[in-house]
Amino acid sequence: MEERKLRENLEALKKGDLEVDQVLEELRLAPFEDLGHTKVDHHRGLRQGVAEVIYGEGKSLDQIDQIVQAMLGAGQDPILVTRLSPDRGAFLKEKFGAHYNEPARMALIGSPLEPGGRGKILVATGGTSDLPVAEEAAFTAEVLGNEVLRLYDVGVAGIHRLLSYKEDLMAAKVIIAVAGMEGALPTVIGGLVSCPVIALPTSVGYGASLGGVAALLSMLNSCASGVSVVNIDNGFGAGYLADRINKI
Amino acid sequence: MEERKLRENLEALKKGDLEVDQVLEELRLAPFEDLGHTKVDHHRGLRQGVAEVIYGEGKSLDQIDQIVQAMLGAGQDPILVTRLSPDRGAFLKEKFGAHYNEPARMALIGSPLEPGGRGKILVATGGTSDLPVAEEAAFTAEVLGNEVLRLYDVGVAGIHRLLSYKEDLMAAKVIIAVAGMEGALPTVIGGLVSCPVIALPTSVGYGASLGGVAALLSMLNSCASGVSVVNIDNGFGAGYLADRINKI
Amino acid sequence: MEERKLRENLEALKKGDLEVDQVLEELRLAPFEDLGHTKVDHHRGLRQGVAEVIYGEGKSLDQIDQIVQAMLGAGQDPILVTRLSPDRGAFLKEKFGAHYNEPARMALIGSPLEPGGRGKILVATGGTSDLPVAEEAAFTAEVLGNEVLRLYDVGVAGIHRLLSYKEDLMAAKVIIAVAGMEGALPTVIGGLVSCPVIALPTSVGYGASLGGVAALLSMLNSCASGVSVVNIDNGFGAGYLADRINKI
Amino acid sequence: MEERKLRENLEALKKGDLEVDQVLEELRLAPFEDLGHTKVDHHRGLRQGVAEVIYGEGKSLDQIDQIVQAMLGAGQDPILVTRLSPDRGAFLKEKFGAHYNEPARMALIGSPLEPGGRGKILVATGGTSDLPVAEEAAFTAEVLGNEVLRLYDVGVAGIHRLLSYKEDLMAAKVIIAVAGMEGALPTVIGGLVSCPVIALPTSVGYGASLGGVAALLSMLNSCASGVSVVNIDNGFGAGYLADRINKI
Amino acid sequence: MEERKLRENLEALKKGDLEVDQVLEELRLAPFEDLGHTKVDHHRGLRQGVAEVIYGEGKSLDQIDQIVQAMLGAGQDPILVTRLSPDRGAFLKEKFGAHYNEPARMALIGSPLEPGGRGKILVATGGTSDLPVAEEAAFTAEVLGNEVLRLYDVGVAGIHRLLSYKEDLMAAKVIIAVAGMEGALPTVIGGLVSCPVIALPTSVGYGASLGGVAALLSMLNSCASGVSVVNIDNGFGAGYLADRINKI
Amino acid sequence: MEERKLRENLEALKKGDLEVDQVLEELRLAPFEDLGHTKVDHHRGLRQGVAEVIYGEGKSLDQIDQIVQAMLGAGQDPILVTRLSPDRGAFLKEKFGAHYNEPARMALIGSPLEPGGRGKILVATGGTSDLPVAEEAAFTAEVLGNEVLRLYDVGVAGIHRLLSYKEDLMAAKVIIAVAGMEGALPTVIGGLVSCPVIALPTSVGYGASLGGVAALLSMLNSCASGVSVVNIDNGFGAGYLADRINKI
Amino acid sequence: MEERKLRENLEALKKGDLEVDQVLEELRLAPFEDLGHTKVDHHRGLRQGVAEVIYGEGKSLDQIDQIVQAMLGAGQDPILVTRLSPDRGAFLKEKFGAHYNEPARMALIGSPLEPGGRGKILVATGGTSDLPVAEEAAFTAEVLGNEVLRLYDVGVAGIHRLLSYKEDLMAAKVIIAVAGMEGALPTVIGGLVSCPVIALPTSVGYGASLGGVAALLSMLNSCASGVSVVNIDNGFGAGYLADRINKI
Amino acid sequence: MEERKLRENLEALKKGDLEVDQVLEELRLAPFEDLGHTKVDHHRGLRQGVAEVIYGEGKSLDQIDQIVQAMLGAGQDPILVTRLSPDRGAFLKEKFGAHYNEPARMALIGSPLEPGGRGKILVATGGTSDLPVAEEAAFTAEVLGNEVLRLYDVGVAGIHRLLSYKEDLMAAKVIIAVAGMEGALPTVIGGLVSCPVIALPTSVGYGASLGGVAALLSMLNSCASGVSVVNIDNGFGAGYLADRINKI
Repeated sequence: MEERKLRENLEALKKGDLEVDQVLEELRLAPFEDLGHTKVDHHRGLRQGVAEVIYGEGKSLDQIDQIVQAMLGAGQDPILVTRLSPDRGAFLKEKFGAHYNEPARMALIGSPLEPGGRGKILVATGGTSDLPVAEEAAFTAEVLGNEVLRLYDVGVAGIHRLLSYKEDLMAAKVIIAVAGMEGALPTVIGGLVSCPVIALPTSVGYGASLGGVAALLSMLNSCASGVSVVNIDNGFGAGYLADRINKI
Repeated sequence: MEERKLRENLEALKKGDLEVDQVLEELRLAPFEDLGHTKVDHHRGLRQGVAEVIYGEGKSLDQIDQIVQAMLGAGQDPILVTRLSPDRGAFLKEKFGAHYNEPARMALIGSPLEPGGRGKILVATGGTSDLPVAEEAAFTAEVLGNEVLRLYDVGVAGIHRLLSYKEDLMAAKVIIAVAGMEGALPTVIGGLVSCPVIALPTSVGYGASLGGVAALLSMLNSCASGVSVVNIDNGFGAGYLADRINKI
Repeated sequence: MEERKLRENLEALKKGDLEVDQVLEELRLAPFEDLGHTKVDHHRGLRQGVAEVIYGEGKSLDQIDQIVQAMLGAGQDPILVTRLSPDRGAFLKEKFGAHYNEPARMALIGSPLEPGGRGKILVATGGTSDLPVAEEAAFTAEVLGNEVLRLYDVGVAGIHRLLSYKEDLMAAKVIIAVAGMEGALPTVIGGLVSCPVIALPTSVGYGASLGGVAALLSMLNSCASGVSVVNIDNGFGAGYLADRINKI
Repeated sequence: MEERKLRENLEALKKGDLEVDQVLEELRLAPFEDLGHTKVDHHRGLRQGVAEVIYGEGKSLDQIDQIVQAMLGAGQDPILVTRLSPDRGAFLKEKFGAHYNEPARMALIGSPLEPGGRGKILVATGGTSDLPVAEEAAFTAEVLGNEVLRLYDVGVAGIHRLLSYKEDLMAAKVIIAVAGMEGALPTVIGGLVSCPVIALPTSVGYGASLGGVAALLSMLNSCASGVSVVNIDNGFGAGYLADRINKI
Repeated sequence: MEERKLRENLEALKKGDLEVDQVLEELRLAPFEDLGHTKVDHHRGLRQGVAEVIYGEGKSLDQIDQIVQAMLGAGQDPILVTRLSPDRGAFLKEKFGAHYNEPARMALIGSPLEPGGRGKILVATGGTSDLPVAEEAAFTAEVLGNEVLRLYDVGVAGIHRLLSYKEDLMAAKVIIAVAGMEGALPTVIGGLVSCPVIALPTSVGYGASLGGVAALLSMLNSCASGVSVVNIDNGFGAGYLADRINKI
Repeated sequence: MEERKLRENLEALKKGDLEVDQVLEELRLAPFEDLGHTKVDHHRGLRQGVAEVIYGEGKSLDQIDQIVQAMLGAGQDPILVTRLSPDRGAFLKEKFGAHYNEPARMALIGSPLEPGGRGKILVATGGTSDLPVAEEAAFTAEVLGNEVLRLYDVGVAGIHRLLSYKEDLMAAKVIIAVAGMEGALPTVIGGLVSCPVIALPTSVGYGASLGGVAALLSMLNSCASGVSVVNIDNGFGAGYLADRINKI
Repeated sequence: MEERKLRENLEALKKGDLEVDQVLEELRLAPFEDLGHTKVDHHRGLRQGVAEVIYGEGKSLDQIDQIVQAMLGAGQDPILVTRLSPDRGAFLKEKFGAHYNEPARMALIGSPLEPGGRGKILVATGGTSDLPVAEEAAFTAEVLGNEVLRLYDVGVAGIHRLLSYKEDLMAAKVIIAVAGMEGALPTVIGGLVSCPVIALPTSVGYGASLGGVAALLSMLNSCASGVSVVNIDNGFGAGYLADRINKI
Repeated sequence: MEERKLRENLEALKKGDLEVDQVLEELRLAPFEDLGHTKVDHHRGLRQGVAEVIYGEGKSLDQIDQIVQAMLGAGQDPILVTRLSPDRGAFLKEKFGAHYNEPARMALIGSPLEPGGRGKILVATGGTSDLPVAEEAAFTAEVLGNEVLRLYDVGVAGIHRLLSYKEDLMAAKVIIAVAGMEGALPTVIGGLVSCPVIALPTSVGYGASLGGVAALLSMLNSCASGVSVVNIDNGFGAGYLADRINKI
């Protein structure tokens, strides 16, 4: 059960719009629901503040369908599905009225949480080709209830582009620095700001970029402090973590 | 110039304990001081809230000595030196009255900042052998002004040890999860808590641990959300980042 | 010649249903039969208790057809074919009445052995996407004559799901722990039980999962004892080994 | 508390040699004991059948000393310490009357368990240089209560040496196949026997052996069934697992 | 100019079937012919005993066509083209009357050299799936003028299959041992025979076989002497080298 | 703004063909133009002597279209687009009158700069299959205003082909040595000449070539001096650098 | 024979200070001199403009001694020896009056060439620990006859330090950018200047820096143009190449 | 039993110098002798033409001593011990009158076999630092009965040094090409000669040479035909194989 839903129920109870038994019934749900292939975690919202998110890759459309239904049945809102091809997105749109974010390849069922937290989350990319991964991060953070500022194509090989946004960088509470190739962006940003920087390597590049491993290693070895790293192309993970930091 | 020092000066000015010219003189210092081999960054404290830290490895004792003197000359307090052998620590103790933390292999010149931030930072390790890296993280966070709780040897192969500290885990604002070998600790912790988890891989292990790379990869691929990773054995980086998150 | 067939023949001989010459004829078969591209091992059943299994990848359908015929000619039952696409499975179903297990991508010609051994084999997965590999393991163990319990999607990032099946885990005689990404499942299970745990890494993941290498390394470095590892996605190997341990 | 000790206490209670309160007092011990740097797991013997083993590497002698004392205080017998240099072994011998096995680099405090299980464990090595790792495996299995047969220097480049021990191989219940360099031994043995084979790669070799990674990869890709793999040089892990399989 | 052609010309000159000028004209050809994209080496046959071979991958069909014509123009016979898809093979068959060997994916224009050398070349494979690479080696050796014996699917996990061909192995002058997965075949053969063994790793396998790297490493670390290794899937290279050794 | 355009404007101003305000207007353009997904760097031509080049991979055709328009609007000429499939090249040809170089997979909008610099740039390849990468380098250098000499298929396994062009090699001012497989070409050339050699590894090869990593490592370890290396298949980078060196 | 010496001889001949026979005698020297273990290349100075340099690692002191004598005998001046421990440097100082540069670990016998070329070579480092490698590059370039500007500790995590030297960067003809850890320095510099940038990765770092491989990969994937890379810690190679470019 | 010894015995029997029983007694020896840690293979000489060689690394001096005695007892002559430190060599010299080859780090007990085979074996190195590995190869080949020609320091960065020995290269029956760093030597030699080339990579180099892996990969990808590769620094293996080829 997602926290927002629980709060509504309790307030309805207080106001007399719901009876004790009605509230109890929903709480009686087991902490997870067993679909055979998947055990849907219904108490994650209570335990961690955010409901479980469906990782779309490697699941059949039928499995995703069942999981969404189980979540809806447990009152979860919003529901996010990641790594979803356009045709699968169309299916969810058709069946559940989902919003499909094409560059991010994500579907949202329900509505984003109200923006909150300590301040803005800034998402910066080294190049244009990093955009899809950056969008996955930005959209995740927005849905989880954060104000997000996008700053795309400010790679360090043209440092004046980055420096001209110094005030935006300084004002952010959390920064997600997205880069492929040599992955230097988080290091330069890390030296300019005092807030936490989430380094998000992408698989953009060729040859010795080794599918993003070069950018990943570069970020792990950053000589700037205050920088930590998530998996290659893991836009969702970066957006989720940014939300957690912003709501600390 | 470190922020605490600046604040003291300005308050002394206000109270009449210092003259305008005295304050100006200190501010007149160039943003960095060139020692030839090193350019000491004197404005980092103002820009990033924390003064530059001296990475001891690969520097001669003479170079460290000069850098410390330059920092002292610019009024920095505290000054941290990392990756320092005991004999070098003894030298700094002798010359500058440094405090040397042996397991962490760090020296502190000056005094720790007052504990502050949003709450406690918890440092957990998978095993006893991870202790030195964990201490580097814990001591860094303490010196930068945080309350730190240590929870050592709670590896996931004996999950009841970890689960018996569930309340401490739930109460923390930031968690640093330190582990070598299979590196599973941050994932299990990440599934239990809602705060950000900093995964800190160590080089503890042998054979296919590949000097900590196995733990690093495991952490980067964590199926728990809210987890990010720093370099192998980078205790300082984890402690510094935890401070940044806790002070957001 | 598979052991079950031999036993039947000898019992038929004892009862008088077969003549000595008939039994001899079958035993006269060379220990292997040379098809040019393949040397079918007919005595493997006697030597190792289980007949040779056909690894479908990299073989032409024609080659598989010939091998199956050679095995049938030598009285092998059951015959297992692994790594088989649905259309190839359909061919074997058509021609030999094979049963095709779609998620496991395996075909069974003949009938499973009677369940036996010292107890149950439990197959657990970290996530839903590990299901195909887990099914290959579970189906193999079932066909070789074992009772198998499936426990899917109990990854360690939601440890309560796993812990709620503690009794099933404790009761198993052999456990196959299947996981991709960070591969932590075998370690946590290994710390809970006293039976042997077979760690089966999968290629589920992206970026720094390096096609399952991250999970593999994690499992090899497990800080839990009683854990050993098979190749990435090698469901058949894990199922076969579990059978061997359960029949020790 | 180790199972053997518990059984003795209960039998003494039954015979009247101990009072209820005396037995209770020992059971009252917390499941683990917190030494700060280490949380000694006192209930592991009950939960997993074997008491916790001390991994000596990366621990100070003082830490090992404290852990041994805590274990002794909880009645554990035997206590095994692995990866121990001769001088540390001498210290434990002096203080606790430990037996130090030099090639295996292990110390035993207390006495080995009575040999039991379903049959013999055979430890085979490819070469003479694999002996220390093999001894770690063999000694572990012996201390945990198993009959162990050693078969050293039977590498596959002189296959007649191995084949001349065919009967010993066939008779074993579990085989630990130890090899460095090309790591082919477990594959050849795996094709000869029907029992489980634990492949134990060693770091013996040079150049492209990459510290044992070549042998490890070779073993993971074994075309023989019934083979699983432990970490490079992990003799203890192989011996422990062999015991678990033999006692299933 | 290929040696066979030169010898024919000189003998024709001696017999009076050719005039000095005719022979000279052919010899006048530059040592290589420049096609822009390719410099065809016409004197390689004289220098190295074997004419240049066309590596088909990465060349356009038009480029291959031009190279073949240049070689034919210089009197080369036979001409081998490797790594050729069936449709390209069909083109060469149509235009130049080439013989296309489908499993080996090679085309032969002209006729094989007369078998010669010191004895037989034996090509052995670990499994059925190694057949295409083995055929590339075997066909190359045959075309270059050697008697070749094929021994397929004699992998070491069923050692009796290999041992039953001991006499063939002992009688060979050069052995090409082809294997994927754990790559143990060359080591076992290397321990049985006294002739040179060419280890030919294949990309057959999955997961930790890393596209043949596991087999390659295994072969490089062979504990048998007299073994050397060529690139993964380099059947042509192995066949060519076997010819060179057999003709020493 | 590209330097050539600026020079024209200033000369037109001097001659009276342009008014001060017209020149000013063009200079008034911000140093970069923000298209949202891309920040086009208009002052790069002034700062670095060469206008920004569009890396086509990972950009949508629509994004490329917008960037080209922004560059044209800012007076850039020539405009280069790399890594462009033929159909995208056809689109640019249709819309902007681009010249599409098929082997190099590049489009040129506008006209090449006048050949200049200190001398000729020589582009040599080890084999025919390296041609596309070599063409990317050669065409880039030509468009940027250099005379380029192509020397293809002079690999070191037939050293006489290379040595017969010794004079061309000696006469060049910069050499780009392109090779896949074992990547030895730059080393041999580096030992023959005194000018700088740019080593350009290609992904030509198979098996242990690891997608060009073998050639890359070989080049980085060259025992010849005066050699430096660019990324695998980075023809553009090599051509660009050669221009920079030739115009020093 | 080194070019400077040859020129002196010819001028002395012209002035009458030397006789034809004297000059001839020196020219009569074979192009290389065979010391058994080493073939000293006496014509390299003529062929490549710079005399052979002695790579000290892996050579015995006796071998170095013999090579130096052979070079002196052939009139080479200067002679450089790299990778030389202080005690070996002391030996050369004693015996040949060498100058030993301690941070660079190089010895110079003879005198540096007169500074020449097109302009200054700038050597920049990311940190203080990169100094020894940078000195090897700087000293090499100086000895070969170049004016060198050192700019140490200007890493990109404090970008204002680097930017404050913008004019020096702009004025340089060749830049050597030295960095370990994340290796971002060459990329940022490459975006600021129009001259060629030689990226020189160092092994400074720990954990995931993998001995400098992280910095190397980062540099190879630089999104800045005009950057090429030499081997990790190859200060000599970078200095030598910078000289070649500066003298083009 | 080594073949030479057997032949002597049989000839002595024929001449009447030995009795049948004496000859039988020696033949009665088991095919291998079990020393516990080592199983000495006494029939290897008969089976493979060359007696077993002792790999010294990882064996205690005491074990080596016992093996040598067992071999001497079985009449083996010569006995080779590889990878032996000078002090161990001195011990064998003292006790068994061994000859110790210092650069090769090998000991010979007994006398070299008479030179034979089809012709000369040539050992070439790229540099001076490759000498120890080359000597291990050369000495092995000499002891096994071959004429060996050494050609050291003929690396391809000074190709004229290599080309000036063209006749020696052409005349050799087998060539061992030894190189570290970029490992290009075998490729260039492979293009010049028609005999088999054994590529022997060494660990000479630094940084991206990765302990010889760069040279190894380069050699495996050689674009020259007739080249095969042995393990890094495996001088013994190369020398042994050269002998096998030369005696085919």
